Amino acid sequence: MKRIQICDTTLRDGCQAEGISFSLAGKLRLAEELDRFGIDYIEGGYAVSNPKDMAFFRRVRRRPLTRAKVTAFGSTRRKATRVAEDANVMQLLAAETDVVTIFGKAWSLHVSDVLRTTAAENRKMIGETVRYLKEKGKEVIFDAEHFFDGYKDSPAFAMSALKAAIEAGADLVVLCDTNGGSLPKEVYDMTRAVRRAAPVPVGIHTHNDSELAVANTVEAVRAGAVHVQGTVNGYGERCGNCNLCSAIPVLQIKMGLACCKPGSLTELRNLALCVEELANVRHGKKAAFVGESAFAHKGGMHVDAIKKNPRSFEHIEPEAVGNQRRVLISEWSGSSNVLLKALDLGVRGLNKSSPKVRRILEELKKFEGKGYAYEAAEASFEILIQKVLKKHKPFFDLKQFKVFVEKRGKNRRCVSEATIKVRVNGEEAHTVGEGDGPVNALDNALRKALIRFYPEIADVRLTDFRVSILDPEEATAATTRVLVESTDGEDTWGTVGVSENIIEASWEALLDSVEYKLFREEGKRRGKRKGGDSHAPADRAARGPKTGAR
Amino acid sequence: MKRIQICDTTLRDGCQAEGISFSLAGKLRLAEELDRFGIDYIEGGYAVSNPKDMAFFRRVRRRPLTRAKVTAFGSTRRKATRVAEDANVMQLLAAETDVVTIFGKAWSLHVSDVLRTTAAENRKMIGETVRYLKEKGKEVIFDAEHFFDGYKDSPAFAMSALKAAIEAGADLVVLCDTNGGSLPKEVYDMTRAVRRAAPVPVGIHTHNDSELAVANTVEAVRAGAVHVQGTVNGYGERCGNCNLCSAIPVLQIKMGLACCKPGSLTELRNLALCVEELANVRHGKKAAFVGESAFAHKGGMHVDAIKKNPRSFEHIEPEAVGNQRRVLISEWSGSSNVLLKALDLGVRGLNKSSPKVRRILEELKKFEGKGYAYEAAEASFEILIQKVLKKHKPFFDLKQFKVFVEKRGKNRRCVSEATIKVRVNGEEAHTVGEGDGPVNALDNALRKALIRFYPEIADVRLTDFRVSILDPEEATAATTRVLVESTDGEDTWGTVGVSENIIEASWEALLDSVEYKLFREEGKRRGKRKGGDSHAPADRAARGPKTGAR
Repeated sequence: MKRIQICDTTLRDGCQAEGISFSLAGKLRLAEELDRFGIDYIEGGYAVSNPKDMAFFRRVRRRPLTRAKVTAFGSTRRKATRVAEDANVMQLLAAETDVVTIFGKAWSLHVSDVLRTTAAENRKMIGETVRYLKEKGKEVIFDAEHFFDGYKDSPAFAMSALKAAIEAGADLVVLCDTNGGSLPKEVYDMTRAVRRAAPVPVGIHTHNDSELAVANTVEAVRAGAVHVQGTVNGYGERCGNCNLCSAIPVLQIKMGLACCKPGSLTELRNLALCVEELANVRHGKKAAFVGESAFAHKGGMHVDAIKKNPRSFEHIEPEAVGNQRRVLISEWSGSSNVLLKALDLGVRGLNKSSPKVRRILEELKKFEGKGYAYEAAEASFEILIQKVLKKHKPFFDLKQFKVFVEKRGKNRRCVSEATIKVRVNGEEAHTVGEGDGPVNALDNALRKALIRFYPEIADVRLTDFRVSILDPEEATAATTRVLVESTDGEDTWGTVGVSENIIEASWEALLDSVEYKLFREEGKRRGKRKGGDSHAPADRAARGPKTGAR
Repeated sequence: MKRIQICDTTLRDGCQAEGISFSLAGKLRLAEELDRFGIDYIEGGYAVSNPKDMAFFRRVRRRPLTRAKVTAFGSTRRKATRVAEDANVMQLLAAETDVVTIFGKAWSLHVSDVLRTTAAENRKMIGETVRYLKEKGKEVIFDAEHFFDGYKDSPAFAMSALKAAIEAGADLVVLCDTNGGSLPKEVYDMTRAVRRAAPVPVGIHTHNDSELAVANTVEAVRAGAVHVQGTVNGYGERCGNCNLCSAIPVLQIKMGLACCKPGSLTELRNLALCVEELANVRHGKKAAFVGESAFAHKGGMHVDAIKKNPRSFEHIEPEAVGNQRRVLISEWSGSSNVLLKALDLGVRGLNKSSPKVRRILEELKKFEGKGYAYEAAEASFEILIQKVLKKHKPFFDLKQFKVFVEKRGKNRRCVSEATIKVRVNGEEAHTVGEGDGPVNALDNALRKALIRFYPEIADVRLTDFRVSILDPEEATAATTRVLVESTDGEDTWGTVGVSENIIEASWEALLDSVEYKLFREEGKRRGKRKGGDSHAPADRAARGPKTGAR
């Protein structure tokens, strides 16, 4: 099987993205993860004055990677300097990596307008720098910046930049679509032309400004490129770089090329999630291959078909990239969705034509018609099923709540306070809470009221709160949907509420959240008393975060 | 210039996305926006049992679109039914659209494993349904579901499905990469084969499961497809559909093909933002062309180069798609905008480097850092400028407001009440209002308090109310942004408020809305007294809705 080298530049080009930066510890951890995954080259950062990147190179030498080569990134010498005295080139050596990547200009516009020098000097800057680094014993990767724009403008100019690097001994030349504006056909044709002329291996580096980065990489590989540069999750300046989480499975599964090490593909989703955590950004749910929605089925017909044959609506097996199939509950749902979900929840003895399944579906459609949405609120959906099956048990009785918000004078902060009266097993609790806003105050009051009856409530806190105005044209009389995510440290669950009144909508979501926690705890206790197999509710909860959390 | 038809399916396939659903009002509004943008076909929804979609078809007939044709989506007749008695087909007719889109199977796996019928019956299902709809006078679009997977499996099978539709009179056949697993080269080759064989125009419908949807669309068009289906922002099941916000500018700017109507491309970013708001999802900042980061430059070298020649790091002019260049770390490169706006407000003697312009920019940056957003709230931005220039005049003094929400018993509705005390010219007003929710009650109380001092307030009503939780992970203590749109029947203006407390955020937006109305009225009165040219403020307001309403 033909092998394609993968070069990850998350630590360099990825950090050019708006909002992305890694701590030094994060960079080191990420390098280890990339190494474990089987990435061939890790572009660790700029070998320039950036102290964090230089510290990374120093530290990574002390933690040997098993397989990946670390490469330091920098530019050719500057114009009209001697290479052995050029500060940039000295920094590249100071990084003490076995491999260095230098970029040089392959577009005359950059040479004339940005560098403000001649084509001949540009070629010298490239050639002398490559030769010098080769003499120092380095493996040298030459990134031909703006290659495709340069080639469109003048094939001779772009090729002469490559030639300068190759003649000086570059081990690999990388064709860069730096501005991300090239089309797949152009990339294919130009890469092919280079492959025919160049006696060294060719690499590809694309950007996503036209949403074509993965396609341009695929086409370059088809034209003979053997080295692919990109970033995990596609982070990168502007619209991002070629997303390795898409490019790797396309190359491997769809084009039959070997990337990384055998078997690592099933770790792809984990890698994506890990990098997301290190970067502290929320991952695109709908990311190809690794996103939470990538194998999520919503339409009733689709769900029905998937049950008959998963290939019918899945282009690959989700497990091949470490992902999993999900069935969403929505107004589009057919009885197949509901049935799968009910089974998932441990409800036995149902089939597609059970009157109970039909009733659940009817209720679901009724509530969704009112504005409820259960995709991110599986806990509320469970409570809905319990209600339809007459298995729902209220844990307390709301007598009343009152919420107050007050502002005294235009420069004073608003204060919020809530009181609540509930009845549990014939006993009454009447409490007051305050908070940053009215819902926060109500949540605090509810918690205070319930805690002496249900101490397990103490562990629960809200981790997410989202508000949608469903028909904003109705202005403040519009229907409001509130989605709440709660956690008790172990599990995470989502609930929903809908009302014209935002406080009431929030109350519904809070109520479902508390009830869900309490019936799950009750299930666990029952399970323990019986011993035996009643782990079911806990299992279910444990699956919660994966399938329903957001 | 060759024309490519655009068919938007945001209202149908887009709603299959996890977390995307539109209210009926939202669907109607979106159809109007798509029409204004110059989309050729709007696939409005499923003509099946979903009551919201059927209501959409009913309502959209009453609001004629200027250009776009609305199409209803549904399947062929089911197996072993008579077409004239098939419930699905009847629903398609009940939608009463001039155009219908039906999908049929082009992959034998689906026919055998999902439909569980024969190839011959599948062809009949397609042919009879198309013929029947043509007899009813419809323009018929045939979506060949799974065409590419079907063709890879058996070219003869896939082509026979197309042939059945064409022979029965289909006006257009659309090749669908339903599972999103095809590669650009495959799509090109197969589309070319169809173009050679088919006597009707060919369309393309791709999904993004391999992050190749836009590329596959581009390749199909290169092979001769003349009709492109996709969604705004790429919403759609699993990883989404072909993103029209990328496909349209690629086709138009890079391939020289005409899409939509002349000049609409500069509205592309507005369209993307509007759909995002209607769907109440946060747009991908790094979206190609329309994302906030798409022309944002972070690296120092890049910023320097951009200053020398923007082409050096921008593949197109940002303005071509209604976007703008940003330089990160420093403020938005918008001093020209600020300048224009200040001139608009009648502030004279400023230029781009005036200290006042710099101060406005600094304030803007400070407030944006806190979560304020002025794109949809130009009225608040004008008030901000007045404050910086010390030209702001409060029309009343807030002494206090109080908001109460109460629920008595779990089955009783919440009631909301607000009291407010304000002082105007030394006189005090203390009023109470009620409403569907707390903000509605507060708005009513405020109006009652001010009306005897400012009768013109009677005309103002809120037409839009949106809530965004900016850091939802902070749960109910998160920062909340409220956007309000108001109208007095003539003009429409947007305002914004931000606070941890949703009531306070709403108050800020209400306050700005009232102040904006009052200073505008004052300006008009002054204008009348003076006579002369002082229509300026009214003009300004009239421009509001276009630039600021959303």
